[in-house]
Amino acid sequence: MELFYNENLNANDESLIFGLEESRHLSKVLRKKVGEQIHVTNGKGLQWKGIIISNDFLRASLKKTKVTLHQIKSLPLHIAIAPTKSNDRLEWFLEKATEIGVSHITPLICDHSERKILKPERMKKILVGALKQSAQYFLPQLNPMISFEKFIKSYHPQIKLLAHCQKGNKTALHQIKNLNNEILIMIGPEGDFSDREIKTAKNHSFISISLGKQRLRTETAGIVACSKVATLREISKIK
Amino acid sequence: MELFYNENLNANDESLIFGLEESRHLSKVLRKKVGEQIHVTNGKGLQWKGIIISNDFLRASLKKTKVTLHQIKSLPLHIAIAPTKSNDRLEWFLEKATEIGVSHITPLICDHSERKILKPERMKKILVGALKQSAQYFLPQLNPMISFEKFIKSYHPQIKLLAHCQKGNKTALHQIKNLNNEILIMIGPEGDFSDREIKTAKNHSFISISLGKQRLRTETAGIVACSKVATLREISKIK
Repeated sequence: MELFYNENLNANDESLIFGLEESRHLSKVLRKKVGEQIHVTNGKGLQWKGIIISNDFLRASLKKTKVTLHQIKSLPLHIAIAPTKSNDRLEWFLEKATEIGVSHITPLICDHSERKILKPERMKKILVGALKQSAQYFLPQLNPMISFEKFIKSYHPQIKLLAHCQKGNKTALHQIKNLNNEILIMIGPEGDFSDREIKTAKNHSFISISLGKQRLRTETAGIVACSKVATLREISKIK
Repeated sequence: MELFYNENLNANDESLIFGLEESRHLSKVLRKKVGEQIHVTNGKGLQWKGIIISNDFLRASLKKTKVTLHQIKSLPLHIAIAPTKSNDRLEWFLEKATEIGVSHITPLICDHSERKILKPERMKKILVGALKQSAQYFLPQLNPMISFEKFIKSYHPQIKLLAHCQKGNKTALHQIKNLNNEILIMIGPEGDFSDREIKTAKNHSFISISLGKQRLRTETAGIVACSKVATLREISKIK
């Protein structure tokens, strides 16, 4: 199934005209012909099926044939993560987290952060690409970058977890109870969270967690967190 | 902890002289000084601690101070995976699978494979890099590329799983019993396993599994398989 993205599309729209990028993709890359059908989502649950009226590579157009409104299927999982030094590694995290399942992403500025400037448009493009690729209908919400301090004081989900590499008492993620509530997992930069940050998080009722025995890179920790939460939620449904 | 790699190192060796690459890394990148201590592994369980005698960037040398022999800690997990078209994506899988935990990797040639030539030396370098980064002592075994047919007929582990995207009866990975046995998970190329391959696998007692509801890319499926098995084995230990 070929899935396209148009964030302004509504269920009531009878027709759709693609912009330059999607038109070119439809016409030149996928070589779609007039009369073929494709699916389009707005990233907010809409699956809009249309027949190709024109495959013009500058201005392709579609006519609606069917609409499905998907209900949000996954429970909220918010990953707040310090962007990695390497942009590739951050983009890999964004792509994989979207594929596996994440609802909110917040880039964090931490004491040990080496990267404090991002390109949100480029990041959104990665999320949209992964959404289309994995045939999903809900685009993760990408929040603006925020300092660790401000974030921790302003946001209060039901389950607040901090994944770090320091020694000491840490709970394995699978030992956390009620994972079907809204979960926030914070993941630090290459140099980890500072002692001060770990203390601050503890004072704000965060639980220190471990994601396994290995020392994971920042982006791997982010991906493993998404995958573990998905697995544990799948298991809890079965029981 | 800085971990270096030397595959020929033995527990009995009293001293060690690094080759060009590790010498340069020690001297120029990490700027290690004479008298500092570092750890070296041979990827077979050895943790050899030594004091730097010379930090020459062409020929650094060490003298042994302590040796620890680690027992293999993780249960066997073998991922047989069709290499992705993009080399980057394959290398990402190799790095992340090593970090998260895998014991054997076999590249597969499948009916829909677009990539049939690999660079095993480059691949091993990625594995070693990830081993050092994640401070582990057992290098995953990287097998030569083999055809789906040959592999399936020659290798008979206790649990044989095939992850694919075709519809039909599939078992969720967490419903598979006895995950503490040796597990093989096969993962297909971008175009998935062919119907013929899925049938052949079934005839050889493979169980078709699902790794979740989403349509995952090849390399994501490989990483998610490693992470799910690790999580499920952690949980089974607790019970």
